[in-house]
Amino acid sequence: MSDRIPRDSDNDYSEVMAKTRRDFAADKTSSKLDHIGHYSVDPATTAGNIENFIGVAQVPLGLIGPLRVNGEHASGDFYVPMATSEGTLIASYNRGARLLRDSGGVKVTVVDDAMQRAPVFVFNDAREARDFGLWVEQNVEEIAAQAETTTSSGKLRNIEQYAAARMRYLRFNFTTGDAAGQNMVGKATFIACEWIMKTYPGIQRYMLSGAMDTDKKHSQINTLHSRGKRVVAEVLIPGELLEKTMGVTAEVLFKARQINQVGSFMAGSSSTGAHAANGIAAVFIATGQDAANVAESSSSIIFADVDKAGNYYLSITLPSLIVATYGGGTGLPTQQECLDMLGCNGAGKVHKLAEIIGATVLAGEVSLMSAVLAGDWVTSHDALGRNR
Amino acid sequence: MSDRIPRDSDNDYSEVMAKTRRDFAADKTSSKLDHIGHYSVDPATTAGNIENFIGVAQVPLGLIGPLRVNGEHASGDFYVPMATSEGTLIASYNRGARLLRDSGGVKVTVVDDAMQRAPVFVFNDAREARDFGLWVEQNVEEIAAQAETTTSSGKLRNIEQYAAARMRYLRFNFTTGDAAGQNMVGKATFIACEWIMKTYPGIQRYMLSGAMDTDKKHSQINTLHSRGKRVVAEVLIPGELLEKTMGVTAEVLFKARQINQVGSFMAGSSSTGAHAANGIAAVFIATGQDAANVAESSSSIIFADVDKAGNYYLSITLPSLIVATYGGGTGLPTQQECLDMLGCNGAGKVHKLAEIIGATVLAGEVSLMSAVLAGDWVTSHDALGRNR
Amino acid sequence: MSDRIPRDSDNDYSEVMAKTRRDFAADKTSSKLDHIGHYSVDPATTAGNIENFIGVAQVPLGLIGPLRVNGEHASGDFYVPMATSEGTLIASYNRGARLLRDSGGVKVTVVDDAMQRAPVFVFNDAREARDFGLWVEQNVEEIAAQAETTTSSGKLRNIEQYAAARMRYLRFNFTTGDAAGQNMVGKATFIACEWIMKTYPGIQRYMLSGAMDTDKKHSQINTLHSRGKRVVAEVLIPGELLEKTMGVTAEVLFKARQINQVGSFMAGSSSTGAHAANGIAAVFIATGQDAANVAESSSSIIFADVDKAGNYYLSITLPSLIVATYGGGTGLPTQQECLDMLGCNGAGKVHKLAEIIGATVLAGEVSLMSAVLAGDWVTSHDALGRNR
Amino acid sequence: MSDRIPRDSDNDYSEVMAKTRRDFAADKTSSKLDHIGHYSVDPATTAGNIENFIGVAQVPLGLIGPLRVNGEHASGDFYVPMATSEGTLIASYNRGARLLRDSGGVKVTVVDDAMQRAPVFVFNDAREARDFGLWVEQNVEEIAAQAETTTSSGKLRNIEQYAAARMRYLRFNFTTGDAAGQNMVGKATFIACEWIMKTYPGIQRYMLSGAMDTDKKHSQINTLHSRGKRVVAEVLIPGELLEKTMGVTAEVLFKARQINQVGSFMAGSSSTGAHAANGIAAVFIATGQDAANVAESSSSIIFADVDKAGNYYLSITLPSLIVATYGGGTGLPTQQECLDMLGCNGAGKVHKLAEIIGATVLAGEVSLMSAVLAGDWVTSHDALGRNR
Repeated sequence: MSDRIPRDSDNDYSEVMAKTRRDFAADKTSSKLDHIGHYSVDPATTAGNIENFIGVAQVPLGLIGPLRVNGEHASGDFYVPMATSEGTLIASYNRGARLLRDSGGVKVTVVDDAMQRAPVFVFNDAREARDFGLWVEQNVEEIAAQAETTTSSGKLRNIEQYAAARMRYLRFNFTTGDAAGQNMVGKATFIACEWIMKTYPGIQRYMLSGAMDTDKKHSQINTLHSRGKRVVAEVLIPGELLEKTMGVTAEVLFKARQINQVGSFMAGSSSTGAHAANGIAAVFIATGQDAANVAESSSSIIFADVDKAGNYYLSITLPSLIVATYGGGTGLPTQQECLDMLGCNGAGKVHKLAEIIGATVLAGEVSLMSAVLAGDWVTSHDALGRNR
Repeated sequence: MSDRIPRDSDNDYSEVMAKTRRDFAADKTSSKLDHIGHYSVDPATTAGNIENFIGVAQVPLGLIGPLRVNGEHASGDFYVPMATSEGTLIASYNRGARLLRDSGGVKVTVVDDAMQRAPVFVFNDAREARDFGLWVEQNVEEIAAQAETTTSSGKLRNIEQYAAARMRYLRFNFTTGDAAGQNMVGKATFIACEWIMKTYPGIQRYMLSGAMDTDKKHSQINTLHSRGKRVVAEVLIPGELLEKTMGVTAEVLFKARQINQVGSFMAGSSSTGAHAANGIAAVFIATGQDAANVAESSSSIIFADVDKAGNYYLSITLPSLIVATYGGGTGLPTQQECLDMLGCNGAGKVHKLAEIIGATVLAGEVSLMSAVLAGDWVTSHDALGRNR
Repeated sequence: MSDRIPRDSDNDYSEVMAKTRRDFAADKTSSKLDHIGHYSVDPATTAGNIENFIGVAQVPLGLIGPLRVNGEHASGDFYVPMATSEGTLIASYNRGARLLRDSGGVKVTVVDDAMQRAPVFVFNDAREARDFGLWVEQNVEEIAAQAETTTSSGKLRNIEQYAAARMRYLRFNFTTGDAAGQNMVGKATFIACEWIMKTYPGIQRYMLSGAMDTDKKHSQINTLHSRGKRVVAEVLIPGELLEKTMGVTAEVLFKARQINQVGSFMAGSSSTGAHAANGIAAVFIATGQDAANVAESSSSIIFADVDKAGNYYLSITLPSLIVATYGGGTGLPTQQECLDMLGCNGAGKVHKLAEIIGATVLAGEVSLMSAVLAGDWVTSHDALGRNR
Repeated sequence: MSDRIPRDSDNDYSEVMAKTRRDFAADKTSSKLDHIGHYSVDPATTAGNIENFIGVAQVPLGLIGPLRVNGEHASGDFYVPMATSEGTLIASYNRGARLLRDSGGVKVTVVDDAMQRAPVFVFNDAREARDFGLWVEQNVEEIAAQAETTTSSGKLRNIEQYAAARMRYLRFNFTTGDAAGQNMVGKATFIACEWIMKTYPGIQRYMLSGAMDTDKKHSQINTLHSRGKRVVAEVLIPGELLEKTMGVTAEVLFKARQINQVGSFMAGSSSTGAHAANGIAAVFIATGQDAANVAESSSSIIFADVDKAGNYYLSITLPSLIVATYGGGTGLPTQQECLDMLGCNGAGKVHKLAEIIGATVLAGEVSLMSAVLAGDWVTSHDALGRNR
């Protein structure tokens, strides 16, 4: 038997091929593959996205809520499905959700929105590169027109420029509607670059990515200039409620933050928050987002305050939350259902989803930071986590 | 009807409760929830880990291979299941796997191994904090003994120390056997800290995390000192083979790296690689790893060279790859099957899994970086990706 | 005798007062203070800038050159005075200058130019902060008009915006003529902010610096968006000349860079260059720049290449070089003479000075990196350095 | 006339040669060079360190004090000479010094001490590199013995190890007595490396620096692991005194910090303090430190707190303060006098000097941060600064 995986022809994303490949894999690896063949997706349609399809991974879904969101797009109480295999995670987020709701809910705001592709152009020397930069500034409208020939929903918002050596790094910022948009902006930028190459003389070469889009990577430029949605979630928690529910005072939380900020700074951490990645990964898998974008999306900035009355203001800023309600994995059956649960399925819903995720992440933050300080962190893992 | 999610009692992680909650969610959110109820996990056992269980997310699995791995633990040809909803990803990794195999395979080495919990101790002043640091150094064996009372598989390897203001930040490094170990080391460190508190006078307070463990977050300290496994994957690709297969020469790849490194540096990127997060997220979901750890695990360092004969040496270093073959999501049914396919199910397999992931990531790197430079990046997304 | 330092009245920056204070200091500290009183500055004029003036530190000046600069403002051969107390530094820079000249000189280009003050405005919530940001965008011309009432040479170029929590961080970018301009932009931004406070309702408070100007500090935002002058210095060194002069081949240098870039990345270094701070500090002190700005100015990005013919292309980008030919220490007598030597004294000369410093730094880079690799680094310190 | 700078022969660092070169420079650059020839250093001795000596830069010295230092090495009231050309700097530091003294003085502690050279060793593959690392661990005593053959005051404390690709980066940490020690540790590490090359088989090559010593550069590794002295300066300022003297309350300062920390984090700043570089550069020039080390030394970490009684605890941690009381520029005449004023001239004084600088920096921090918030920052520059 050949060691080549049996392949899809272009028009055969069939159940039969999936089974053929499962059998191939079972045989080659001497495994019994029953569960992965237990699915309700249709290989011929949505799953056809995935080459060499053999079945599915089943990731358990837990539910938290009601989570009260006071957004501009999401407003009211939500039940959030989270796909995870980590014990205590759901319980912890749920506990936070309750506190946030009892505090009146989470105000969430999308403050920025852009998806990037960042090509680089190489010249004979820095002077030529600089002059090219000026030309780009002056021709941004025509460049946008070229880019937008490839897409109906993507709009070129602006082009950042960065200079080093004889290179000019451009960073194209697009709004991308309800799609995450990485492929859309890649294609649009490619067409724009090809037009630039034809139009502007003296370019030695160009590459479609000069590594300043930092796709699938955390970066400081994302923290500064956003990637995907920049979301701020805020809550004002009454001091007494906090203490009663979480067993920790606003002051204790606030003082702990000072110490953690120093630790975070010395560590060179991408986040000053506690564990945004947990909530983000779980909602991402549930709703068909690209789980690789946890790399970027998990960055976070905490800002807290205590007011005169002893209330605890807590906010988290997610500078690079990459979400979609259309395209990619959002079209898969279980993921569609999870989007449905949030009222976020399809066109015009992406900001709503971003707001709900922002609120969810804040629930997890307040829960974990309280648990650490109230001393029941380890204990709760003992009670609920079974993965010692 | 109450807005509270119907809850598990401690001994009722039953299918009945799952259905009750599904119905509750369907009703509350006016959704039709059929697919998420289609699963083969047993809520009463493994899925019981997950609170408020309502069903599963089905994530499509694609297969790549054969991927030849020349590791110390993984040796031979592997077929790697990847759970993803992103079009072209499987095809791209598979293309890379073929090139790597034709080049003789990937040499992979686990060069470091540690999981952390990093408490912080607060004193009256910096002088007391410093003296405490000396005491810790002198008493590390006793501290280790205390920590290890809580675990049979975790071993305290060493304690790093960091100083700022009147605080002493300790970073406990454990080896954790086949588990990822975050909870294990949390508990062990907690016990050690409690013992320290009883034993050493003059500590004002301590917190179990001072934010220098950077759990679920990228950080420079992870890049320097590892978190989880530090894995290096290396290959020497014959120049002709590279050009024939990928349509790009070693020199072009090498020169492009120089330009990308400058872009990466200016962007303040966590990685000098292209898209490690893609491969890592996909194998993580398939094999029951904690997907939130993509935040840390996706950091990477590329180092490349061209030798006199025109061969391309390419390596990727993953400084903080967090993997397990035991505990957590690794026990779930589809995840067990995926681990079985890799021969990585259960005790004594974690280094093998780390090596296979290292090789997989390298396959994705060489494939994407070639595609970008050969100019077929956008085109392949057009052909295979359907999420414009 | 009082322990208060005898003070200047507003109109008595006299030699008498300087001596009174010297005597006071000598008495209080039981020191003999002869040399610091040996100076030719006039306390009543330029030195009057400095409160509690007691004399001068004499910093040795060495000379390098001829350094050939092919700039847009500096063109020809220059002799560069460098103030330093470090042995071998002058010899090393001089060696580099010779090589660069023999290679045809250094092409230097100022590719960006801006000085910042970055206030922060605090609101009730993130939504108000975002709306304020839109208002700022729409009113940038009026804000500029307000800012520019305070200065004849400063021009507000643009305002960057950064969002987190309920704050809006603005970063005012000014061009500042021949001054470094930190104080000028501080005052102009202050006036603009006061006008904003009067004009825009609902601002809770503002601070003139929200720490995003990163004055006297290295930062990633400086590397991205420049602070002061962004300068690129480039040279193409014939392979044979390099080998003959430096004892090292282009290929060896190039390969070593790959290894150093990995080290630099893991270390989280602010620079990929070798020691820009050496040249910058020495020219800064000689020419009356603010030596504290070495913190920002010493960041650097190296980009190198080897062409088909074996020539070594080497460039250094200084993203945040802060220089002046007017104001501050540039008016002091010895500093005036050093500026004179460079033809950079006074109005319209600041880009010329920036170019000369860029070329100087490149001379130091090529010299040190060659020395390290040719193995004569330690030996030259033994022969020339006397500070073991 | 030749364009070559007239050179010292090895035994002619004479006044005559200095004048010859001055005349040469004046002629070549059509300048009048009087002031730089006005000095009291003896070219034949100390200034002989500097190649191509032509004279001196006179940098104005101002005096601050009394500054009360409660260190382990520096104890009592100090008058600190600061060399600067920036108006208001001295006044501002002096104002801070008064407040700190009125608060009972600054407690300063040197909590770590090490100088580095970081070679890199290259192998065939990562596995060989890892094995070499183990060997280094096991042979650290012999390596230390080899290194220490070259120096009487340098001691190898430990060797950090970092792994990437097929390289092993070592970071040798030395204590260096009263010298800053960069050259000393370079030589010692060189000898150790040469011994390693002879002893350990299979090393492809090594370089004396793999860029992880980050000499003359800020880096995260310095912030984590120190370079030079790690110094913490702490003070507890009575709330009333703060308000009376500075016109700002502890609470206002504390709240402002929260906002600045967010700005600092987004900017990717090397410091959370305000302007440590100002104080450090000024004392460095006055006392003959290497001014290029401002690049590393200016990093700082602020930690503040307000206690129940309303007192303001303020601390600054300088993780990489590089100082010497022996060697290099410390031997120059005016610099000797400045060291004398501080009682820090010569052997056994380096920790004392580090403590005094720590206290000085703290004086500048409290002064500037108060001024910004009390709104008199711009105004004081108007009154005292003359460099608009």
